[in-house]
Amino acid sequence: MKKFVNDPKDYVAEMLQGLALANPDTLRYVPEYNLIMRADAPRADKVSLVQGSGSGHEPAHVMSVGPGMLDAACPGDVFSAPPADFVYETVKLVASPKGVLLLVNNYTGDRMAFEMAQELAEADGVTARTLFIDDDVSVQDSTYTVGRRGVAGNFFVLKAVGAAAERGADLDELVRIGEKVNSVTRSMGMALTACTPPAKGSPLFDLPGDEVEMGVGIHGEPGRSREKLQPAREHVREMLTAVVDDLPYASGDSVALMVNGLGGTPVGELYLVYGLAHRQLAERGIEIARSYVGEYCTSLDMAGASLTLVRLDDEISELLAAPAGTAIRVF
Amino acid sequence: MKKFVNDPKDYVAEMLQGLALANPDTLRYVPEYNLIMRADAPRADKVSLVQGSGSGHEPAHVMSVGPGMLDAACPGDVFSAPPADFVYETVKLVASPKGVLLLVNNYTGDRMAFEMAQELAEADGVTARTLFIDDDVSVQDSTYTVGRRGVAGNFFVLKAVGAAAERGADLDELVRIGEKVNSVTRSMGMALTACTPPAKGSPLFDLPGDEVEMGVGIHGEPGRSREKLQPAREHVREMLTAVVDDLPYASGDSVALMVNGLGGTPVGELYLVYGLAHRQLAERGIEIARSYVGEYCTSLDMAGASLTLVRLDDEISELLAAPAGTAIRVF
Repeated sequence: MKKFVNDPKDYVAEMLQGLALANPDTLRYVPEYNLIMRADAPRADKVSLVQGSGSGHEPAHVMSVGPGMLDAACPGDVFSAPPADFVYETVKLVASPKGVLLLVNNYTGDRMAFEMAQELAEADGVTARTLFIDDDVSVQDSTYTVGRRGVAGNFFVLKAVGAAAERGADLDELVRIGEKVNSVTRSMGMALTACTPPAKGSPLFDLPGDEVEMGVGIHGEPGRSREKLQPAREHVREMLTAVVDDLPYASGDSVALMVNGLGGTPVGELYLVYGLAHRQLAERGIEIARSYVGEYCTSLDMAGASLTLVRLDDEISELLAAPAGTAIRVF
Repeated sequence: MKKFVNDPKDYVAEMLQGLALANPDTLRYVPEYNLIMRADAPRADKVSLVQGSGSGHEPAHVMSVGPGMLDAACPGDVFSAPPADFVYETVKLVASPKGVLLLVNNYTGDRMAFEMAQELAEADGVTARTLFIDDDVSVQDSTYTVGRRGVAGNFFVLKAVGAAAERGADLDELVRIGEKVNSVTRSMGMALTACTPPAKGSPLFDLPGDEVEMGVGIHGEPGRSREKLQPAREHVREMLTAVVDDLPYASGDSVALMVNGLGGTPVGELYLVYGLAHRQLAERGIEIARSYVGEYCTSLDMAGASLTLVRLDDEISELLAAPAGTAIRVF
């Protein structure tokens, strides 16, 4: 294993310490519960947004805390759901009189932790609701999932409810917006290489040098098929066809297109993939109104990428365009 | 080779097409000269800034075009300097009455191409100046270099002169600012793995599974030493010591600290490295006033990172904090 790591068991804590040190004015790290929160949370005038999942998907979710985005993120260890009591403590720390919205990707372990935390917090008098995200069209059930997995499309649900929350929308309104965005969002990814969890020290699965995992999960879960490596345009066509046919997206639709890197793929390749996807969508008569290219939800150091489409309307477009800020920035 | 690529010889052109398609309102791709320029360049009220180098270092430099940054970038093929005539055509396309400033990392091939382009442009009546950047403390001369290499510290020179250019500073003033920032900027990087150029199809150099290249160049050039893989804190200490001792940076200094990923290292590891570097600087009494964590100047898919320090004063701090925008963004 070749990684920047000290003791692998300290990987997540040391990453979070670095994140807080780099953002001293805006973020706070709470080591007792392994959480990152906005320095100004909770605010009485807005619903607080909380998300968590296993670590290893950065910038999701600990680097998505900030104005117009999350109020707190409570990550578990690499690829492990956070403990329910840590989620509960997170909810209490950011509890606002307007309530708390929990955003959860659809994995069995995450659902259990967040549902238990919600019950505990409600018993304490906190108003809380939960939104589940399940945008991955690759497989119906999966290694860690009943139903579809939640992957990079999470970003769009969070961005939209985050913008609405910042303006004072109430919990019911946020649930309506989040469910609506999730309902028009679809993703699929593929792996060129396996990822290596720090504590394991070796690749999580075997992938021969001339094969790809089409429809891979963000924890290395199997996808639809093991295929031979092809020119990029063929892989893009297969992913895009699966995504487009699922909703389906149709000629005349206006969409957001995200090309998400899985951690080990350089941004130059992501823009190459973007160009191919853009043209293939244009051939179908689908208009790309918003573009996202970079890393949003990764799988440690996995080489690979996912494509996400969101069907836009005026409400969603406006929420996606609203100002926001996180630790991930250039300047 | 496992990459998103069609024909490797089209890699750069297809990446640039994707970049322009994702930014239709702000960027223009000119295929004849393989360049990316601002849609609103040239502007008569500002000096135009142009940069180029081999491709494979993205986001440098083609994804650094935008307000407060570059007016145009003319990349060569992967790890190859752009042809002098393409640089010349780029300079002509963005020539402003206030002149053109060429920013060039110190590599022999890039220097030759840009110096020839400047001469040709001046013969056409364009006022042009060139700024060389050489922040890498690793080695004095290198495979492609007489003198020190220019690496990720380039970002700070560009950001500062970009901010000043946007406000109407003249060429002399921009050269003064750029030389000043370069003179207080130092970097060093290390590779955990080699990178694989698309046209080569195999790793550029051999690096055993338990070794790192300390002081690696961004084209895979040898650094100071081949070393055994160590806990991250030891590697960070070695890089930081080399950087700090070089200027030297001293107790009481206020600095910007950049942790730059080389392409294959996930952002979680970069934040872990950031935390270690931050604390080691604090132990030396050096205050970190600005933080940068992410990919700024990469080497294709190389796993690794570099550290850059900039000694700040009021002028540099203010220029680094000024608004700017490029293709690399989250929202």
